[in-house]
Order: sequence, then C-alpha cells, then structure tokens
Amino acid sequence: MTPKVFYISDGTAITAEVFGHAVLSQFPLKFDSVTIPFVETIARAEAVKKQINDSFITTGQRPLVFHSIVKSEIRDIIYSSEGLDYDFLNTFVTPLEQQLGVQALPTMHRTHSMLNASYDARIDAINFAMENDDGQTLKHMDKADIILIGVSRCGKTPSSLYLSMQFGIKAANYPFIQEDIDNLKLPDILKRNKHKLFGLTIDPVRLHEIRESRLENSRYASLRQCRLEVKEVEMLFKKERIPYIDTTHQSVEEIATKILDVAGLERHMF
Amino acid sequence: MTPKVFYISDGTAITAEVFGHAVLSQFPLKFDSVTIPFVETIARAEAVKKQINDSFITTGQRPLVFHSIVKSEIRDIIYSSEGLDYDFLNTFVTPLEQQLGVQALPTMHRTHSMLNASYDARIDAINFAMENDDGQTLKHMDKADIILIGVSRCGKTPSSLYLSMQFGIKAANYPFIQEDIDNLKLPDILKRNKHKLFGLTIDPVRLHEIRESRLENSRYASLRQCRLEVKEVEMLFKKERIPYIDTTHQSVEEIATKILDVAGLERHMF
Repeated sequence: MTPKVFYISDGTAITAEVFGHAVLSQFPLKFDSVTIPFVETIARAEAVKKQINDSFITTGQRPLVFHSIVKSEIRDIIYSSEGLDYDFLNTFVTPLEQQLGVQALPTMHRTHSMLNASYDARIDAINFAMENDDGQTLKHMDKADIILIGVSRCGKTPSSLYLSMQFGIKAANYPFIQEDIDNLKLPDILKRNKHKLFGLTIDPVRLHEIRESRLENSRYASLRQCRLEVKEVEMLFKKERIPYIDTTHQSVEEIATKILDVAGLERHMF
Repeated sequence: MTPKVFYISDGTAITAEVFGHAVLSQFPLKFDSVTIPFVETIARAEAVKKQINDSFITTGQRPLVFHSIVKSEIRDIIYSSEGLDYDFLNTFVTPLEQQLGVQALPTMHRTHSMLNASYDARIDAINFAMENDDGQTLKHMDKADIILIGVSRCGKTPSSLYLSMQFGIKAANYPFIQEDIDNLKLPDILKRNKHKLFGLTIDPVRLHEIRESRLENSRYASLRQCRLEVKEVEMLFKKERIPYIDTTHQSVEEIATKILDVAGLERHMF
C-alpha cells in the first residue's frame, strides 16, 4: 500500500516539503502526500490531527508526518496524533543550543524574510532576469552578473529565472537564432562582457523534441536544424573559450548551481 | 565570534542550505556560511575536509557542517573532519527504513529529477508565466490555473514566477494601470475567468517607496497616486468578491503558498 505522508508547518511548509522529499526520495516507493501550510491556530491544528487520525483509521497504517512547526502549542497537538513524527527542526535545535551556548528563539523564526535589504536585491534580480530575457534588450548587459548564451530552447530562461529567484543573481540571457548560425559570432556588447558569458548546450535529439512540441514540422524544429545549430554553437564556445554545460539530463536546480560553481559566483540566501 | 557554517552536498546543496538555514534561523546569531556543492570525488571531499579543519585551526571553534551527502565514501571523509556534523538525511533514513520495512537506495537519490513528465509540466508552467506576465497578452487566460491581479509593483511578477517554478502552477498576471483607475472594471476575458482571479494589494507607503526607486518624482510613484490606486483596486476586489492578500510584509514564498492555500490549488513537487 502507498504510504500516506503529511507535510505540516505553521509557515509556508516549503521547508517541510524540501526536507521530507529529500529523505523520501531515498526510498524506491511511491508516496501519497498532502501538504498543510499555515497551521497557526489550535483549531486548525486539531483539524489536522483529526485528518492524520482518520488516515490511520482508514488505511490501518500510521501516516508519516514531516513537520517544521515553530510554535510549541501547535507542535504538541500534532505530536499527540497517530502519525509518525519526523521533526527535523527540534531534532537539531537542541544539540545546536548546547553547541552554540545560545537558546533558540522560535518566535523569531522566519526562513524567508523580506524585512531586509537583501530581499530588495532579490526582487531586483528577478526583475532583471525578466527584462533581460531572450536578448529582448542588450542595453543592461554591463549590469549583469552572468549572461547565459545558447540556442533557442536549450534552458536559458528557466535557468536565468532560477538564478535570480533562488540565489539573487542578475542573470541575462541571449539566444543564437537560426539566421545567425551560418556566420556565428558574438555581438560587440557580449564581447565586452566576455568574462560573464556562460554557454548552455543540449543534445540535438532532445532539442528537436522540445521544439516539435512548440512548432511542429517546422524547419526550426527539424532534427537537421537542431544538429546544425548545436554543432555551430559548441564550436563557438570552444573557439572563444566560453565555459559551458550540457543541460540535457539536468534539472533547473542542477544547471543553476553548476553555473555558479563553475563561474565562481556567490550564492545568496533568502 | 561569528560561527562558521559549511553546507555540503554531493548534489546541488540546495537541500542542505534550506535545511541548515531553517534550523539556524531559530538562533539570534549571525553566521558566516559557505556552500560547497557537487562534492562527488574523494579528492574534492579531502579538499573540503582540509577547508573545515583549517577553519577550526584558524578560529579555534569547530565549524558547523550541515550536509546531505548520499555517497557513503564521501560522507565518511566529511565525518572524519573536525567539523560538527548535522546530517539530516541519515538521521531520518534509518528510522524510516525500519518503519517502511524497505531499505533506502541512496544511489537512486535525485531530489530534483528531470526524467519525468512532470518536469516538462514545470518548464511549461515557467514559460506560461513568462509569456503571460504583466497583461502583455490576454489570449491564454483560459489556460491559466490562476490569474493574479493588482496595481503595478505590488508583487504580481515574482509571485507568478515562483508559483510556476516551485509548484508547476500556470500563473498569469494582469496589472490595473493608472489610466484605468478612474473607471475600474474587469476586462471581459477576466470576467469569463473570474473563478481564477486572485488579488494582490500592498500598503500605499511601501508601494510609493518601490515605485520611487524605479521612476523617481513621477506622478506614477507619488504617494497620492499610490493611495488612490490601492483604494480603488481594493474596492473592486470587495465589490467583485475576488479573494486577495496584502503582500506588504510577506516574502514571495509566503505570498505564493497563501495564494495556493486560499485558492485550493494543488502543489506539485519537483
């Protein structure tokens, strides 16, 4: 039977999800999961407890409960349910209190704070990525932290957005288009920012699939065109000694963190 | 002295960061942190161990080491350093193995997988949010999961992007502009999708600050104009019974998860 999993928090529950998902992804099983954020009142906590207990009654199995609940009166109610608690916050807070010689202050808990200057920097980075996507303008390239370049649909846009959202990096991106391929060179504005350039490439067969789902039976999506573009662009990366990675088998998270790692850019946290 | 913190992983280290950041944000201290992803070889693990030990020698304090390392031969090297290990993966994997009656398969660990159909859905959602940002087109509103509406610079764009990136939700957004304010009404295409509408509002003083940093001393940024727009738009939300939230003191994570919670939309995980 598919185990039932609850992700519960008095906040967004994003941390509880990331934590539980990372732990459960080690098991070769499917899970039936439900996320319950903002459990901030006794009434809502009691309702969640009932939901956990009902699951136990219906399935005969104790559900797994991953939680990051800061308020102790809420946590105690969840603890008193029939669920099996995996409480990563408190598991680590107590040893850390001893190690640091400082008491934790749960009320100040705010994983994603917006009450600081770095938050504005994050929003600025997101706006920058939006405004400098897909080569729609080249006039802010001097202000970019990094400029992703590659063929159309190789992963530049999601990677730029993730870099800005997760890490506060000002990422622009520039596509090499079909018309440029026969005589491929870097525009002057990119040459001037050559130390910021980072190339993305992709397996031509995968590119062909992605493009087909957007523009079926077009020259743009043809395998022949995809092969040509990828070959020419990779030659340019090598000739110009631009670092690049292959996005074919990588998630947005992996692409973004590898870019930062190779480019030596600092990750910011929010 | 500011405690030194290492976030280490043989993957992206995003999980290690989220986990450590959530735990440490409970403490009223500043931390000096460094993230080291992709520790995939013995050589790199030994170099990281040296870095941890050097920090101990320099500061006289054992650094805190948060890690989510799947490969045991890599983990053993980090364990043998002078750092204090906070290993959330293994702390929970062993009790879960007993509970589930199934052995963990660390080699299959892949928190952010792209080898599945849901990953394409995520990229589609990101592209959708990009293409339907800021009312640039209204022709895909019928395909949206949710449509965020509000005045310019109240948080629509970052929220739409986060909804798509983190949860795979197709979020469009539509701004009420200065010119519409005197005779505020919903365009027909939005009326038809009224069940998808979700309002964002913001404190006019904060809005004024944000707009000033973009267009100083403009009518658009004036406190008077901000007050007028927010008032009119909130009246529309009430009249049309559109659910809405105030973004003033909330992070993108909080705004996005509250929208899903209120709208009853399912969160997808990647």
